[in-house]
Amino acid sequence: MAKVKKPQRVTPRLPRGFVDREADDLRTQDKMLATIRRVYESYGFEPVETPVFEFTDALGKFLPDSDRPNEGVFSLQDDDEQWMSLRYDLTAPLARFVAENYETLPKPYRSYRAGYVFRNEKPGPGRFRQFMQFDADIVGAPNVSADAEMAMMMADTMEALGIPRGQYVIRVNNRKVLDGVLEAIGLGGEENAGRRLTVLRAIDKLDKFGVEGVRLLLGEGRKDESGDFTPGAGLDDAAIQRLLVSYVGTSFRIDDEEIREQSAKTGEPALLGNIAGEETYRDNRAIIGFWRNAVGESLVGTEGVNECSAIEELCRGAGYGPGRIEFSASVVRGLEYYTGPVFEAELLFDVVNEKGQKVQFGSVGGGGRYDGLVSRFMSQPVPATGFSIGVSRLMTALKNLGRLETSTRTGPVVVTVMDRDRMADYQAMATKLREALNPKDGNGEFLGPVVPVEVFQGNPKQFGKQLQYADRRNSPCVVIQGGDEKAAGKVQVKDLALGKEMSAEITDNAEWREARAGQELVDESEMIEAVTAILARQAGASRP
Amino acid sequence: MAKVKKPQRVTPRLPRGFVDREADDLRTQDKMLATIRRVYESYGFEPVETPVFEFTDALGKFLPDSDRPNEGVFSLQDDDEQWMSLRYDLTAPLARFVAENYETLPKPYRSYRAGYVFRNEKPGPGRFRQFMQFDADIVGAPNVSADAEMAMMMADTMEALGIPRGQYVIRVNNRKVLDGVLEAIGLGGEENAGRRLTVLRAIDKLDKFGVEGVRLLLGEGRKDESGDFTPGAGLDDAAIQRLLVSYVGTSFRIDDEEIREQSAKTGEPALLGNIAGEETYRDNRAIIGFWRNAVGESLVGTEGVNECSAIEELCRGAGYGPGRIEFSASVVRGLEYYTGPVFEAELLFDVVNEKGQKVQFGSVGGGGRYDGLVSRFMSQPVPATGFSIGVSRLMTALKNLGRLETSTRTGPVVVTVMDRDRMADYQAMATKLREALNPKDGNGEFLGPVVPVEVFQGNPKQFGKQLQYADRRNSPCVVIQGGDEKAAGKVQVKDLALGKEMSAEITDNAEWREARAGQELVDESEMIEAVTAILARQAGASRP
Repeated sequence: MAKVKKPQRVTPRLPRGFVDREADDLRTQDKMLATIRRVYESYGFEPVETPVFEFTDALGKFLPDSDRPNEGVFSLQDDDEQWMSLRYDLTAPLARFVAENYETLPKPYRSYRAGYVFRNEKPGPGRFRQFMQFDADIVGAPNVSADAEMAMMMADTMEALGIPRGQYVIRVNNRKVLDGVLEAIGLGGEENAGRRLTVLRAIDKLDKFGVEGVRLLLGEGRKDESGDFTPGAGLDDAAIQRLLVSYVGTSFRIDDEEIREQSAKTGEPALLGNIAGEETYRDNRAIIGFWRNAVGESLVGTEGVNECSAIEELCRGAGYGPGRIEFSASVVRGLEYYTGPVFEAELLFDVVNEKGQKVQFGSVGGGGRYDGLVSRFMSQPVPATGFSIGVSRLMTALKNLGRLETSTRTGPVVVTVMDRDRMADYQAMATKLREALNPKDGNGEFLGPVVPVEVFQGNPKQFGKQLQYADRRNSPCVVIQGGDEKAAGKVQVKDLALGKEMSAEITDNAEWREARAGQELVDESEMIEAVTAILARQAGASRP
Repeated sequence: MAKVKKPQRVTPRLPRGFVDREADDLRTQDKMLATIRRVYESYGFEPVETPVFEFTDALGKFLPDSDRPNEGVFSLQDDDEQWMSLRYDLTAPLARFVAENYETLPKPYRSYRAGYVFRNEKPGPGRFRQFMQFDADIVGAPNVSADAEMAMMMADTMEALGIPRGQYVIRVNNRKVLDGVLEAIGLGGEENAGRRLTVLRAIDKLDKFGVEGVRLLLGEGRKDESGDFTPGAGLDDAAIQRLLVSYVGTSFRIDDEEIREQSAKTGEPALLGNIAGEETYRDNRAIIGFWRNAVGESLVGTEGVNECSAIEELCRGAGYGPGRIEFSASVVRGLEYYTGPVFEAELLFDVVNEKGQKVQFGSVGGGGRYDGLVSRFMSQPVPATGFSIGVSRLMTALKNLGRLETSTRTGPVVVTVMDRDRMADYQAMATKLREALNPKDGNGEFLGPVVPVEVFQGNPKQFGKQLQYADRRNSPCVVIQGGDEKAAGKVQVKDLALGKEMSAEITDNAEWREARAGQELVDESEMIEAVTAILARQAGASRP
């Protein structure tokens, strides 16, 4: 016989940035998604789903959180030479869907969808190349009342997930306000695009360099510890003051002292309206007052501030006060992408980061108004606003809060195999148990929770391995029928939880064998009853 | 000002073979998947999910239903030059997952997963490039009792979905039996691979050319109507007889006469054990008897027949008779891929195909034993068996059977906008209604079905458009509060269903205005009560 070439063994592994997900994780996620879906549906949103592929040109050339066009996207060429890409978010495909079906959709069009998105980026801790987002959008809603509704719905979502008030905040900013401030300090117009970017980058360094560092970056420049010099945006003191105190500074508690001094000087409303007593959150109307001052005469800025004011009034009127929804210049997410209000859902409790530092958990999602996205495809403007939740990040947060039950799911009742020639009998026993323990109503709908039942399908030679398997699967009980039991028309039903309890108590070996640790010999006709009794006992015992 | 370049408008469209999916479809699918999941879980299967990307070498080089290696797969090169592919099924990724986590998984490992798979093929009617499969697999199960269990679980799944007994059948074949028959007619060994392929292709033409056509293709060859000649496999009459009557013929009712004649001649068991009376299904034991004859002395064939016999006994013993599980040589799915038993879930009711012909609905899924797939990665054999359901095909089938409810879901209660300056009031009314109509229990869990409530977020200028929108969304009622109502502390609640009924009855215009078609003026404090009453009335009316 010809020598057969031995096939080369393949190493089982995944490409970087991709992960497998197991039962507990998936069940927890399902439950969380069901809660979110429920909130979205209570606001009149309907599900819609698009495929993972889009034509590359339909996706457009911006990522919401990247200014590098088309980088970070998985793309390939179709047979007909057209480029297709895997979606990098759920908003661009929605815009394409709405444009394609514009005539037939109800308007405004409220929709939601959960799905995987793909980023062809360098993966890192908590940074994947495939991850899930859960979005809700209203397309065809021209007024900021829709943005206010999105912010309130996000607050409701956080609370429905069990995040207590005070542990989350929905922060709201507005791209027009930022544009207005920049205009007010003389950075409007095409010709200042470069300086605006320098300013934005400086503001983005607040966490890293603090107010004083940013002040330098906005002015003449900053020399770091190594002596390297970063040239600044060259703003004068008045401009820096306006930008840093009246706008950016309103977001940072670090500035309270300075803000109060300015408030005393200018007669503007004090920012921390409720600092006395328990409530240390910011006064939204005071913040918006500061912003109005910051944008000066700028038309776009004034429009932005008026939008903020309207949103503030809508939220407050519906009972969503500043402890839940807070205006903040710190929300800079996708300011190049969104056209008006932007929001971010932030969790306020502390966690320890990779470097061992205590930090606030931070963002679990965000969104904003994107009036330009659908109209890319249309001859008319189509205003829209939406919100996207980072599903795995939110799950991590809920785990940290202890808001996700660790799975207490009962494993399968295992029918063991004592005699492999009697496999048909064991299979029949399993079928009988499964049917009895998973009853249906008259319409064929299942009643009650699933009770799994299975025959041991591994190699039955070593009986100990079967018990190990049952244990591994968190099985409540096993059913055993050897030759002796069969001859007597009997079956052994072994309560594995009781077995464990007893083995902890029983120290004597003979006594152990005598007790047979939770094992009970019953008539074949009583098998279902005996198993049901064990399940009931364990359900009772696991209750608090 | 410089002339701004007008951006080119993009056409909103999807690449061929990809589709969007809307609310009704998604909700129906969710319900169907929940039922399937429930059945799988009752057999002790646990969810697991793998990402859509795998290394191309880890996917292996075969599709279950294609003999062209690596064709039909979406692939791209990663930054480090390694090739990655989108999964084309859920079995190859599972094999990789099990191999990668072999030490920590319970064995046997029972798992299920629903997910999208991707085929880079020419799309056609009902043929997509992204579609969903729902798989269940047992890895580490060496015996055919696991295959029997898969077949029975599929039968249970069909019934749980409301497909009545007699309208489905799980057909079982075995690759070893086919190999054995081919060996018995002298087509064993490497050197006959080409002829075996010719034989398989001929058998595959049964539907198209009938028994006589296939007989020619197995023998000297066949001339078609245009005069073109297809050379045959060159088998002699005895070989053709054995292959076509004792093996293939057992699957085709078309051959009953011939089979009965042969039965009379040879004294072999008659195939149609229950032809008298209502039950015209085949006698599994008779079929297996024919197959035993067909494989003759072949060792692999005898092993295959013994496996069939064991499966038959296991199914019959557990109450799954030949009306539900039937042995059939017509299952040729992936015979190059599977190593032992193969199965196919077929629906037996008639549908009209694209050509207007009445045909049996046919397959909604299939599977089999794939002992080679996991061990590609391992230094040890890892036996496995599994089943895959084509989700959209099954949904089509259930629609045909009238087993999927058309969505009777109630749309949102719509709070209309009469005065856009009072948006905050309308939003507050919506919030109040939403909270009252979607109560939670003490643990913050929602009670009862979702009742959506929303404020109209479109342009409120034309009130008629708001009512049109509510109608479009299948809204049960709208809430209206203009200046007069506000001044009087009142609110209008309009029952849209009642409005429709009344507008059908009322023909007089004045009478219509008088009745204000289902509209009711109530105190602001009675708004929730009035809406609740309308919902209750409509729920009562929609009951049969």
